[in-house]
Amino acid sequence: MTRTGTAREKILAAAIKLVRAKGFTATTVDDLCVEAGVTKGAFFHHFASKEALGAAAAEHWSKMTAAFFAEAPYHQVADPLGRLFAYIQFRRDILRGELAEFTCLAGTMVQEVYAAHPVIGAACNASISDHAATLAPDIAAAMCERGLDPDGSTTGWSAESLALHTQAVLQGAFILAKAKGGPTIAEESVEHLSRYIRLLFTVAEPSRSAP
Amino acid sequence: MTRTGTAREKILAAAIKLVRAKGFTATTVDDLCVEAGVTKGAFFHHFASKEALGAAAAEHWSKMTAAFFAEAPYHQVADPLGRLFAYIQFRRDILRGELAEFTCLAGTMVQEVYAAHPVIGAACNASISDHAATLAPDIAAAMCERGLDPDGSTTGWSAESLALHTQAVLQGAFILAKAKGGPTIAEESVEHLSRYIRLLFTVAEPSRSAP
Repeated sequence: MTRTGTAREKILAAAIKLVRAKGFTATTVDDLCVEAGVTKGAFFHHFASKEALGAAAAEHWSKMTAAFFAEAPYHQVADPLGRLFAYIQFRRDILRGELAEFTCLAGTMVQEVYAAHPVIGAACNASISDHAATLAPDIAAAMCERGLDPDGSTTGWSAESLALHTQAVLQGAFILAKAKGGPTIAEESVEHLSRYIRLLFTVAEPSRSAP
Repeated sequence: MTRTGTAREKILAAAIKLVRAKGFTATTVDDLCVEAGVTKGAFFHHFASKEALGAAAAEHWSKMTAAFFAEAPYHQVADPLGRLFAYIQFRRDILRGELAEFTCLAGTMVQEVYAAHPVIGAACNASISDHAATLAPDIAAAMCERGLDPDGSTTGWSAESLALHTQAVLQGAFILAKAKGGPTIAEESVEHLSRYIRLLFTVAEPSRSAP
């Protein structure tokens, strides 16, 4: 059970746990109340509907993950490109434990709700896109250091596009991990992502090219 | 409504349509019967449970997509690496229409059911992994032509791993398309995938390296 914090916080924590394990639709209000240890009256005091809870859970997820990543060790790397690689290594390092513990609430929910609950889909998009946006300045700085236009005019790919692509790879890696029942396949996709970025920036710097 | 073929085929077609639009849990047996134009008795004559229907839908999806990709134009390209690029271009070209029309049944279902319905998860895994396996021989051939070991001993990445990574990128691209409400972001991730493979094989051939 999820029984620390206020009733609202307990319900949000319960939502994050249960939706990551079995999806949004399969998680009932009753499930949430049992997991959070609150009454149905308390649930509907805090959330007008299950849809409102879904959107609030995505927003809570965004805040939690923003705080988690803000304190992660990759920020200690001074070089922007090095920091990006350290971020990717960190994402690989946290592919641990149960699938429901390392996969993404926003990516899981949006699969189900994009058509039926646009308000939840928008909150999931904000979660994924806002996290991607934290990577774009480092990618842009690494591009500028190598004489590349971060808007993509010289390369065909922009800093923003590469930042979003990192999240696409992670989301897809989570799906393959669920399909295969463990993180190994996800680790391999994260390694492919790291290799891609290394190649992108190697080609951009002829002096670092392979002989 | 989905009303061609036998009752079983109509139910499977209805499942593919409805699950891609709103997910497995949100799709009820009643929804499936209405969409397929069959009675509940007919449904349970063909499928012992909704879980059995889910697994059969993933298997039907595998057969449908296998036939679809087997007839796709990329097979006409003679060179293995060229065929792989043509496949990726084809995947980009079919990112058209409604989200429910171009996204993947297997990737959508496995997100929800991996823990609650392992039998469906296994069928989704087979669908994704079997499709990836159709790409591995071309990747292996392209690697061999360049003196690379397809098992990855010289490169750190195997043909099988790259084949699965293409599917991770596509699945993640579908999630971002659902989050952002359209295919543009998915097209960009598919372009990043194509660029990654180009760089992998460019670096493998010093004669083709950038100056």
